[in-house]
Amino acid sequence: MTMIQDTEKKFLDHVKKMAAYNEALGLMYWDLRTGAPKNGIEQRSEVLGVLSSEVFAMSTSDEMASYIEVLSTPEAQEQISEITKMSVRECKKDYEKNKKIPAIEYREYVILQSKAESAWEQAKAESDFSAFQPYLEKLVEFNKKFINYWGYEGNKYNTLLDDYEPGVTVEILDKVFGQLRESIVPLVQRIAASEHKPVTDFLFQPFPKDKQKDFSLAVLKELGYNFDSGRLDETVHPFATGLNPGDVRVTTKYDENDFRTAVFGTIHECGHALYEQNISPELIGTPLCGGTSMGIHESQSLFYENFVGRDFHFWKRNYSVLKEYANGQFDNVSLEDYYRAINESKPSLIRIEADELTYSLHVMVRYEIEKGLFNDEIEVKDLPEIWNNKMEEYLGVRPDNDAQGVLQDVHWSGGAFGYFPSYALGYMYAAQIKEAMLKDLPHYDQLVEEGNLIQIREWLTEKIHRHGGMKKPLEILNDVTGEGLNAQHLINYLEKKYAEVYKL
Amino acid sequence: MTMIQDTEKKFLDHVKKMAAYNEALGLMYWDLRTGAPKNGIEQRSEVLGVLSSEVFAMSTSDEMASYIEVLSTPEAQEQISEITKMSVRECKKDYEKNKKIPAIEYREYVILQSKAESAWEQAKAESDFSAFQPYLEKLVEFNKKFINYWGYEGNKYNTLLDDYEPGVTVEILDKVFGQLRESIVPLVQRIAASEHKPVTDFLFQPFPKDKQKDFSLAVLKELGYNFDSGRLDETVHPFATGLNPGDVRVTTKYDENDFRTAVFGTIHECGHALYEQNISPELIGTPLCGGTSMGIHESQSLFYENFVGRDFHFWKRNYSVLKEYANGQFDNVSLEDYYRAINESKPSLIRIEADELTYSLHVMVRYEIEKGLFNDEIEVKDLPEIWNNKMEEYLGVRPDNDAQGVLQDVHWSGGAFGYFPSYALGYMYAAQIKEAMLKDLPHYDQLVEEGNLIQIREWLTEKIHRHGGMKKPLEILNDVTGEGLNAQHLINYLEKKYAEVYKL
Repeated sequence: MTMIQDTEKKFLDHVKKMAAYNEALGLMYWDLRTGAPKNGIEQRSEVLGVLSSEVFAMSTSDEMASYIEVLSTPEAQEQISEITKMSVRECKKDYEKNKKIPAIEYREYVILQSKAESAWEQAKAESDFSAFQPYLEKLVEFNKKFINYWGYEGNKYNTLLDDYEPGVTVEILDKVFGQLRESIVPLVQRIAASEHKPVTDFLFQPFPKDKQKDFSLAVLKELGYNFDSGRLDETVHPFATGLNPGDVRVTTKYDENDFRTAVFGTIHECGHALYEQNISPELIGTPLCGGTSMGIHESQSLFYENFVGRDFHFWKRNYSVLKEYANGQFDNVSLEDYYRAINESKPSLIRIEADELTYSLHVMVRYEIEKGLFNDEIEVKDLPEIWNNKMEEYLGVRPDNDAQGVLQDVHWSGGAFGYFPSYALGYMYAAQIKEAMLKDLPHYDQLVEEGNLIQIREWLTEKIHRHGGMKKPLEILNDVTGEGLNAQHLINYLEKKYAEVYKL
Repeated sequence: MTMIQDTEKKFLDHVKKMAAYNEALGLMYWDLRTGAPKNGIEQRSEVLGVLSSEVFAMSTSDEMASYIEVLSTPEAQEQISEITKMSVRECKKDYEKNKKIPAIEYREYVILQSKAESAWEQAKAESDFSAFQPYLEKLVEFNKKFINYWGYEGNKYNTLLDDYEPGVTVEILDKVFGQLRESIVPLVQRIAASEHKPVTDFLFQPFPKDKQKDFSLAVLKELGYNFDSGRLDETVHPFATGLNPGDVRVTTKYDENDFRTAVFGTIHECGHALYEQNISPELIGTPLCGGTSMGIHESQSLFYENFVGRDFHFWKRNYSVLKEYANGQFDNVSLEDYYRAINESKPSLIRIEADELTYSLHVMVRYEIEKGLFNDEIEVKDLPEIWNNKMEEYLGVRPDNDAQGVLQDVHWSGGAFGYFPSYALGYMYAAQIKEAMLKDLPHYDQLVEEGNLIQIREWLTEKIHRHGGMKKPLEILNDVTGEGLNAQHLINYLEKKYAEVYKL
């Protein structure tokens, strides 16, 4: 064995160990959210702390440094496998990111994060931004310092964006978000003025939880979720988590007066899960065994939620099935009226309750604010006012209080700046992917109507899922669609769909 | 900070880290047994392997060696806390045990264990001892070598017993098992000859699973199980697991044609769980945060199963409750007939299906065989014949095949020799503890009948639970009862009870 081969083996063992720790951590987080007894949580947090620190230590260890050094030489790059090469690239990025922050500052930051999250919870409960303001100011300050340590290209905010969506920059986002806004804002106004609003009252009838669960399970099966590689549980905030490709769990939430929460939540999480269940097994035990970015992940959940779950052909097949589980609430509702009702759009204050048309506008409000904060154009103290103004400008609604405005999301309290744009990117990616898919699967509508979803899932697996982290987001987009980020596909889709739903 | 103080702190951090890993491992095992998707199991085994090796490495590391050395000096022993002192003792025992086996032999043994378990499964399925024999021979050989490495006092088998029940020796067991056998064997024969056998057919009526679950939950509540520190799940083999005192989970199994499986299984596991839920919080993060031995643990589960769950006063209160959940199967059955039915005793082939009277005889068969094996008085190849003869001698029944005989239990395939006696010790400890409790709580029967089980639990917590591993089994027994192991209390209880049930 040459020195390079030997180092490659040691490096792969090292990352395999890290993957093992991450899987144990993943299970503990799943457990905390699906029914861990409350009195055990304090000690569980200790355990999470011990294992997380260990992973962090492994990612910044001297061994890791020497593996990266040896395996990054041109000579080594020629000899090692593609998987090792990409794994080294991932580890190097993390190593450099983590090593550039002085240890003492990192520790202070971790403590601040946990305090800030408690402060945010309290502030939100009392709808009082001023109670959260000092924490948010410190979090922004820390991140500004980090940007200086890490360096930046073009715009300072790019460094933060890169963490969630490598390759996507302010320059790109300004362009696509601008384009999107120019089309969506007038469309929202035309919808508001439409005289053909869907009737929705029948949606909010009692639908027993256990029946919702049975229907959710049936839908998961229809979409191709593999129950030998997963399970469905109940949580307050639905999520999907891939512990390894053979164990990808989804959760959902049941609202007995609004079945849509469970049905569309389940479909959304199933999209995430199909991604993780179908990653190539050869990536197991490497840092590449997961979705490649937040945005691409979201593109998969949104693809299923919007292009399958809110599609007319899906319900042409499944509306009668839904009726079997429901308690008579749809008996006098035609398929067309049902379809229009589940695709209702109206501006609202809360992002996570927004429909597919207005969702991106919520993201843009946050994007503009984050960009302003890190370019010293906005001060934290002014956020409530700026937030409310932007909401009025983009969506035509203005929050009455901070809880329904600037304090609604948890992300900033954890220092997650640069994350929000991924949600809107998910919509754009999904629309672009759908267009590309139509070239290979021109009978898409028919497939959905016949329940032949396996072909759709296999196409996505071939193009996206199986690669895990082997390809970066814009690389995937380009390979799949032949172009870069392009908002026009989403715009076309939204205009066509809402013209139909609202008879514009 | 003196050097000793500094070492004490480092040692406590080290064992805290080990406890964290063990908690993560515990959760993964719980998950595997309560619904982990089957396709994820292979990778999960990898993760278990990584974390277990890490714990093993920490228990035998050079740091551990130096902590033990420094903290074992007379000077240090005077300065460190009692908890540290006992923790060092535990770690030292493990360290010496693990270090005395050459690493290469240990690795071979671990591989043998896993192969032997598969071989046992196969051999049991085919009821063919000869297929398991070579593995069992090797396992016995390895353990004989280990006994030589570890050393022994008196009888070679003592070294193995010490692993599960420190302080309990062949000398003690020969005496109490002999005494027990002399009383139980004739009692079993008198019962067989009794003309007043309980009628039991009504026990085996359909009892819906969800109703059994609701009743199990009600019983757990009645017994004082804290649901903020635990949860109830379903498994093939019921168990209780203490991840930390705030998270102690129980599982049960539902047989729709025999409600006793779930009810008595739940009560049994609840006894284990009450022990773990009520360990003093100051022991969290140390090796002392768990039951002190297999036998004392079993004493708690058997206390609840037999002195609460099979007690007349418990059902005087709860029989009407049970009827509410059942489907009419008890409508024409008097409380007395019900009580006699659930206390039916008859010799059987399978240990885990045995009643409280005959159970110990099953244990003695295994004890005699293990003792013979490690003292070179018995050869592995002769086990089926010896097993069958002993079953006939002790219980009056003879297995038709190996699956129902010598191959029935998993323990030996994992090299767990010396474990079985703990089960019988649990019965004896429980009976002794009950006698001692009666001195402090003379109105025991009334407490049970009124559902005042909290006083019983508090007494057990005060005397046993809270100490965790701070006291060794015979120390607890002596502190609680004022005497050593004494089979007479169990004998008195069994004679009185079965005289009543069988009108002897």
